[in-house]
Amino acid sequence: MDNIRNGRFKTGMTDEAAIYTSSLEADKLLFEADIKTNFAHTSMLKHEGIVDEEIADKILCALDSLKEEGYDALVFDPSVEDVHMAIENYVTSKIGPDAGFMHTAKSRNDQVACDVRLVLREEIINIQVGILEFMEGLVEMAGEHLEDVFIGFTHLQHAQPITIAHHLMAHVQALKRDYERLNDTYKRVNLNPLGSAAMATTSFPINRQLTTDLLGFDAYLENSMDGVSTRDFIAESVFDLVSLCTTLSKICEELVLWSTYEFGVIEMADEYSSTSSIMPQKKNPDVAELARGKCAIVNGELVTILTILKAIAYTYNRDLQEITPHLWNSLKVTKDTLSIVTKMLLSVEFKTERCAELAGKNFATATDLADIMVREKQIPFRTAHKIVGRIVNEATTKNMVEEDITSKFIDDISAELGFDKLNLADDLIQRALNPVENVRIRSVPGGPAPEMVEIARENIKEFLNAEFEKHGI
Amino acid sequence: MDNIRNGRFKTGMTDEAAIYTSSLEADKLLFEADIKTNFAHTSMLKHEGIVDEEIADKILCALDSLKEEGYDALVFDPSVEDVHMAIENYVTSKIGPDAGFMHTAKSRNDQVACDVRLVLREEIINIQVGILEFMEGLVEMAGEHLEDVFIGFTHLQHAQPITIAHHLMAHVQALKRDYERLNDTYKRVNLNPLGSAAMATTSFPINRQLTTDLLGFDAYLENSMDGVSTRDFIAESVFDLVSLCTTLSKICEELVLWSTYEFGVIEMADEYSSTSSIMPQKKNPDVAELARGKCAIVNGELVTILTILKAIAYTYNRDLQEITPHLWNSLKVTKDTLSIVTKMLLSVEFKTERCAELAGKNFATATDLADIMVREKQIPFRTAHKIVGRIVNEATTKNMVEEDITSKFIDDISAELGFDKLNLADDLIQRALNPVENVRIRSVPGGPAPEMVEIARENIKEFLNAEFEKHGI
Amino acid sequence: MDNIRNGRFKTGMTDEAAIYTSSLEADKLLFEADIKTNFAHTSMLKHEGIVDEEIADKILCALDSLKEEGYDALVFDPSVEDVHMAIENYVTSKIGPDAGFMHTAKSRNDQVACDVRLVLREEIINIQVGILEFMEGLVEMAGEHLEDVFIGFTHLQHAQPITIAHHLMAHVQALKRDYERLNDTYKRVNLNPLGSAAMATTSFPINRQLTTDLLGFDAYLENSMDGVSTRDFIAESVFDLVSLCTTLSKICEELVLWSTYEFGVIEMADEYSSTSSIMPQKKNPDVAELARGKCAIVNGELVTILTILKAIAYTYNRDLQEITPHLWNSLKVTKDTLSIVTKMLLSVEFKTERCAELAGKNFATATDLADIMVREKQIPFRTAHKIVGRIVNEATTKNMVEEDITSKFIDDISAELGFDKLNLADDLIQRALNPVENVRIRSVPGGPAPEMVEIARENIKEFLNAEFEKHGI
Amino acid sequence: MDNIRNGRFKTGMTDEAAIYTSSLEADKLLFEADIKTNFAHTSMLKHEGIVDEEIADKILCALDSLKEEGYDALVFDPSVEDVHMAIENYVTSKIGPDAGFMHTAKSRNDQVACDVRLVLREEIINIQVGILEFMEGLVEMAGEHLEDVFIGFTHLQHAQPITIAHHLMAHVQALKRDYERLNDTYKRVNLNPLGSAAMATTSFPINRQLTTDLLGFDAYLENSMDGVSTRDFIAESVFDLVSLCTTLSKICEELVLWSTYEFGVIEMADEYSSTSSIMPQKKNPDVAELARGKCAIVNGELVTILTILKAIAYTYNRDLQEITPHLWNSLKVTKDTLSIVTKMLLSVEFKTERCAELAGKNFATATDLADIMVREKQIPFRTAHKIVGRIVNEATTKNMVEEDITSKFIDDISAELGFDKLNLADDLIQRALNPVENVRIRSVPGGPAPEMVEIARENIKEFLNAEFEKHGI
Repeated sequence: MDNIRNGRFKTGMTDEAAIYTSSLEADKLLFEADIKTNFAHTSMLKHEGIVDEEIADKILCALDSLKEEGYDALVFDPSVEDVHMAIENYVTSKIGPDAGFMHTAKSRNDQVACDVRLVLREEIINIQVGILEFMEGLVEMAGEHLEDVFIGFTHLQHAQPITIAHHLMAHVQALKRDYERLNDTYKRVNLNPLGSAAMATTSFPINRQLTTDLLGFDAYLENSMDGVSTRDFIAESVFDLVSLCTTLSKICEELVLWSTYEFGVIEMADEYSSTSSIMPQKKNPDVAELARGKCAIVNGELVTILTILKAIAYTYNRDLQEITPHLWNSLKVTKDTLSIVTKMLLSVEFKTERCAELAGKNFATATDLADIMVREKQIPFRTAHKIVGRIVNEATTKNMVEEDITSKFIDDISAELGFDKLNLADDLIQRALNPVENVRIRSVPGGPAPEMVEIARENIKEFLNAEFEKHGI
Repeated sequence: MDNIRNGRFKTGMTDEAAIYTSSLEADKLLFEADIKTNFAHTSMLKHEGIVDEEIADKILCALDSLKEEGYDALVFDPSVEDVHMAIENYVTSKIGPDAGFMHTAKSRNDQVACDVRLVLREEIINIQVGILEFMEGLVEMAGEHLEDVFIGFTHLQHAQPITIAHHLMAHVQALKRDYERLNDTYKRVNLNPLGSAAMATTSFPINRQLTTDLLGFDAYLENSMDGVSTRDFIAESVFDLVSLCTTLSKICEELVLWSTYEFGVIEMADEYSSTSSIMPQKKNPDVAELARGKCAIVNGELVTILTILKAIAYTYNRDLQEITPHLWNSLKVTKDTLSIVTKMLLSVEFKTERCAELAGKNFATATDLADIMVREKQIPFRTAHKIVGRIVNEATTKNMVEEDITSKFIDDISAELGFDKLNLADDLIQRALNPVENVRIRSVPGGPAPEMVEIARENIKEFLNAEFEKHGI
Repeated sequence: MDNIRNGRFKTGMTDEAAIYTSSLEADKLLFEADIKTNFAHTSMLKHEGIVDEEIADKILCALDSLKEEGYDALVFDPSVEDVHMAIENYVTSKIGPDAGFMHTAKSRNDQVACDVRLVLREEIINIQVGILEFMEGLVEMAGEHLEDVFIGFTHLQHAQPITIAHHLMAHVQALKRDYERLNDTYKRVNLNPLGSAAMATTSFPINRQLTTDLLGFDAYLENSMDGVSTRDFIAESVFDLVSLCTTLSKICEELVLWSTYEFGVIEMADEYSSTSSIMPQKKNPDVAELARGKCAIVNGELVTILTILKAIAYTYNRDLQEITPHLWNSLKVTKDTLSIVTKMLLSVEFKTERCAELAGKNFATATDLADIMVREKQIPFRTAHKIVGRIVNEATTKNMVEEDITSKFIDDISAELGFDKLNLADDLIQRALNPVENVRIRSVPGGPAPEMVEIARENIKEFLNAEFEKHGI
Repeated sequence: MDNIRNGRFKTGMTDEAAIYTSSLEADKLLFEADIKTNFAHTSMLKHEGIVDEEIADKILCALDSLKEEGYDALVFDPSVEDVHMAIENYVTSKIGPDAGFMHTAKSRNDQVACDVRLVLREEIINIQVGILEFMEGLVEMAGEHLEDVFIGFTHLQHAQPITIAHHLMAHVQALKRDYERLNDTYKRVNLNPLGSAAMATTSFPINRQLTTDLLGFDAYLENSMDGVSTRDFIAESVFDLVSLCTTLSKICEELVLWSTYEFGVIEMADEYSSTSSIMPQKKNPDVAELARGKCAIVNGELVTILTILKAIAYTYNRDLQEITPHLWNSLKVTKDTLSIVTKMLLSVEFKTERCAELAGKNFATATDLADIMVREKQIPFRTAHKIVGRIVNEATTKNMVEEDITSKFIDDISAELGFDKLNLADDLIQRALNPVENVRIRSVPGGPAPEMVEIARENIKEFLNAEFEKHGI
């Protein structure tokens, strides 16, 4: 079968060059979109009278049957550079040279940009639905751990008691932003480049609004040179995936950490663990580790894409072809990782006793002791901070635990530092130092108190319902 | 002066460690925001009766005088870790230990997150205004070149005639998306982390909605663990800057290219050029080259930030401190580059005769010849494509130019390829091959025809007016 | 068939998790190396009497037959996690449970590290040979253009005349360093991790020097924890590829530029060009563009690898598995690109007349005029620079060319600037301004004078002969 | 004072453009190198009779006095673009227009490349010495912990007992490779570009070997176009720093982990810790966290440099100027981080009892139990693996510890799995399961047995002595 080179060149590419420049692998994912684009374009050509109605109908009919037959109906020989050629060849094989009319007022430059946008917008929604499902699972899981105290970390050191639920809901907030970021990006993805042709539109009186409507785009791109060459919508989408993967990588890091012997706060499901070929006692959090590693792939893909885009002159350059497979890979890695991390985290079993034990250790409630000094004795926070700091220092040196902290012990230290005695009641001190109580009184919006986390859960459920509905789920 | 270590530790950091961990350099930019945050927080503490009214007023008064005195009023000795400490020390020096109340129910963790957001939201707007001004200049410049034909490139080869105006308007579209992306990011920046305290809020009955309103945030962050540790708003902002810089890098690449002897389509203003110390004849586009290079800085900063964020456990970790200076640098590089590229491009002089000459060379109008065959003779586009391809090949081999293409020449080639003769009128052929005519008839929306570019300019002007108004300009 | 999980777990991985964690795709490339490693290890076990001689021989025999049968002889069902398991299963199918002895004193951790190093060292040599061949081609090509003057650019502006040969030899120098860098890296690749076992060696009295010798490694890694977990040899190798690809990307950038209508200094072979579906007159340098784009892939892979490696605790973590496929991809992209760029560049035809024309334009020889003033009239270089700068400025304004520069013209300008008249002979001036003469007199080592480039060529030929010999070519 | 623009342009750069393009900040570090380069170049010009002896001596004398006066003797006004100009101005101010002879046969292009190489080679050695000192400290620290058992991790799960010394020596091996990599890079840094002039050498009969010798370079670069434009030596150096920082980031990750309450295996020195403004009980490993974060900076700088270098045409382009500050920053971050991590790690106190406790927990010695089965009973390793896997599974379920594992328990499980009873002696079993014994018998080269680690220490000490001597320390 003929190819478009024949007019201009007398020699074909070498086989090596043909393979090197081929986009067929990445094109596979464009198959359906390419049919859709051709269908919309041909329909428009027919509607505007640019292509004879009868010929147009033959083309549309051939496209329909290709859609039915599927990708395998295409014939790929070395002269076929890409899926667009293969589809045109298919139509030609069905209806003869009239297939050539399909390409009137259209170029591979605007077509491929259009195809990629059609696929990407679907994939964005798929990933968004995945995020919503993860959030939903986390909200439910949080509901089971509203009262289960756990230790919150800063600097990976015990900071203050929280609840398991509160921690899970932190992930939900991050995921919500990852979701919303994709919403914003979608607006810049769902735009129609078709009609830009090679870069300067066409002298045929095409109707760009019609193809925009037929393809479900929000609008068409308003400059043809920009239309064929911009790939910022891809870079932006991949950044969104990097951001989501960063969220997932943090979750995985914690799961790896929490399933260590030392932390021991979760039991990972066997389904997401593996053992060792030489150390039979091992139960390794392989899925979490691998997911943590795979998240870095999308960082690399973003760098590849941005490096290709840097300082490239207008308009279309063949370098741009190389961007698409990296978009596909970013989407695949992210989708797979999101799915498996969702299932893995939701199958984790929290060892609530160990969580509670940690929350009560290591003077994690010391801030509250300082707060009580401020509240009860009206001393400045900084003074209270200094006294409590010394209390912890002494207590740690002497291997004292929370229960050993008495009013007298506090006053001795206060005096040593040159401050007045505080005369705090011993039971007040013990209440301040008790993690359950400690969490209960942090009932500020956004705080770990069960009632506040419950409000947070309700807010998210409302959000989820609205969004699921929007996606027709 | 005392510092917060005294309670807990008996030894200070080594000088080297103190310098290594110091954030003072990056903190400078937080000075005003930190006062603002302290002011809002203290006002809230007073309003809620958490801190005694009189003490609160003394604090607010001290903050006011600091604001007036400016950054230089702060005292930095090695024990002062950061600007927050320095400000607290200042207040202490004014009103004594009561300054310690300022820190009630607040931590450096939520404070610094709040400060960074306050600064960043201003900087985003500054950059947005810079983008609007660039767009405005380009729209005006385009207005002066509506009819000036130029050659459009694909693969850096002559593709089709366009106009200088059409090319400039392509940049405007890219910049518009860069602007809108920042709008979307702004929504995720302008959120209030204050009240998250160290990571678990506080047991004081603070009013987060009040500080949110006082600081002009859209809402508060709904989970305290998320509130102190998320930096996704920074990564996203920096990505937006990368995207903008990528746009600028393309512009610079073209300016470098266009100012070569070979292209020779622009004259760069002397103000943005330099010469050589050894080659006195040189006029180098140094600013464009350096701007092209500097754009890569933001790519690197994004990688730094994403690498820091990857797989980091909740909540605050000191690694996060290292993110801020890279945000500042990204903002500075982008602002400076945007400003200078704006001025440089707007001072460029197009050599319109050379532009027109290139538009008429090299069979850039060949597509139209194919289009005419399709339109006049109802042959499929692919057939026309093949004939024209061979025409160009023959003509190039024989050093023929556009004017040498006759109806007979076309028909000979058509016959040679096994197609019917076309009998196109010679004047029709010459009109198709004339670049001015060629541009004129590409009057599709988004096309280069002067009337369409004029519509595009009007649309953008409307957009600019609305946005300038929003920013009060 | 049994798998190693059975002892420890009662539940298998979900199918999704099994696929997600599978390394089979990347393992394919390890097939031969894995047999080799097993062969060497088993031979050693036999030699040291750790495994019964007869059993060992059965294992070795089975490995031999697998090597002959090839990869397709392996059976992969979902329970087979990787190629190591599959090979063990194969041996088991041949000789029964005695196959289990093969794994004595060995773990997948040291085995996979060993396999990857075996494959990588081969690939490094393959790429090195590719570099040598490219260098050889360039040296030959340079030999054909020793006297062909061309213009050298700085800032993409005409700087000084050079020759085509001199330019080609600049690439040769860069490639030589890329080659030598791989030599240095090879030393850190060709080290034996085998015997590290899971991470702590083994209590069996293995002979690490023997496997080191059998496998052709230079030495064994001297710490078992380091042995199983270091991947710095991969990061370093991939950096070397990035460096090579950066060299190639520069070459491609120039080919794209030089094949523009405006520069017009080369004709790209049809085999490495393509045309447009809508613009039949186009001859696009697609291979060069795509190669330029693909070079960015390796940058991204390096970022992925470095991001995975950052801040990962000792020793083996499953994240490391994800590094291998990115190594493979980096190698493949680099090999393919090196090969095609070699062929493409060597098939380029220089338009020597155009090259010469450019060399004589635009006062590229002005530096020499300044040099002559310094040499003949003993004025400081800075003074000469200033005079010549003004000469070029005036000449450009007045559309004068090199031939119009007379002694009188020079002296007028010299006087205007307040310097003495120079009284240079007119023929001296014209010789200085002539590009051929200009190149001829730059006979400093490393300079463009034909005799110096010839010396550079001889040096490289010697280098190539020595290196080819080392690789047995 | 005059500047080099005056000849060519009639208008100066705008202030904004002058600041934007200024390299003064990064040039500061070139001050001494630039004097050195000028000195060597002028000496050569004198030696070759290119510049009059008397004039040359005046220049050399002025350079000498500048060296003595130092950087502050330079005058910077807006017309001074860079340090080279400032130095030339200084010389002019001392000896008048004859200073202009200093620039004979030299360009800023080769000069700046030469200066950067001179500074970089010093910095490489500084960092190398820092690595050697770190290694030395680690080797000594290891000497104090040869017998202290600790748990080795894979997948962050307990794998097998090791010693603290063995773990520390793993870092030493990684650092050794980081050191050697810099050795290799040094060869490509220590090359002389001087004499390349602007890009095409010069017509003056300069002596490149002489400046090479005077400046202590190993050789001169053999192609002038390559000489002025290659920056691969910078990219490679920065990669080496990334590699070193990756090593440091792993160390920091472990220190953060080990200083958690949960791991509790080290006590960080107070000098490298900090506390919290709101949580007085905290002792945070801030230096380790920040160092971990700062390591990512060099990753970003590498990306910036590689992105600038990608697809840039020959020869010098102003973009290259932007590479130098990123090299400086990479060097500074690495040097600072290396220094502080060295001191921090060497001041860590290992809690040896806790280390030993962990080594004895969690069936970390199970592999050895399997090994004993293989050795004593000649069953295949895979069979033993399966039995031990089930033992651990059962024991964990029943909360049994190592001491509870009896011969009978083993045989019951063996039978249950369908294998023969093993009849292992109980004391053999207990010896296999004891971590101290377990480490002792892993006396393979590279293993954790004290005698093997001692050998490793001796090897490194020898290496260190040789290298310190080479650096004259």
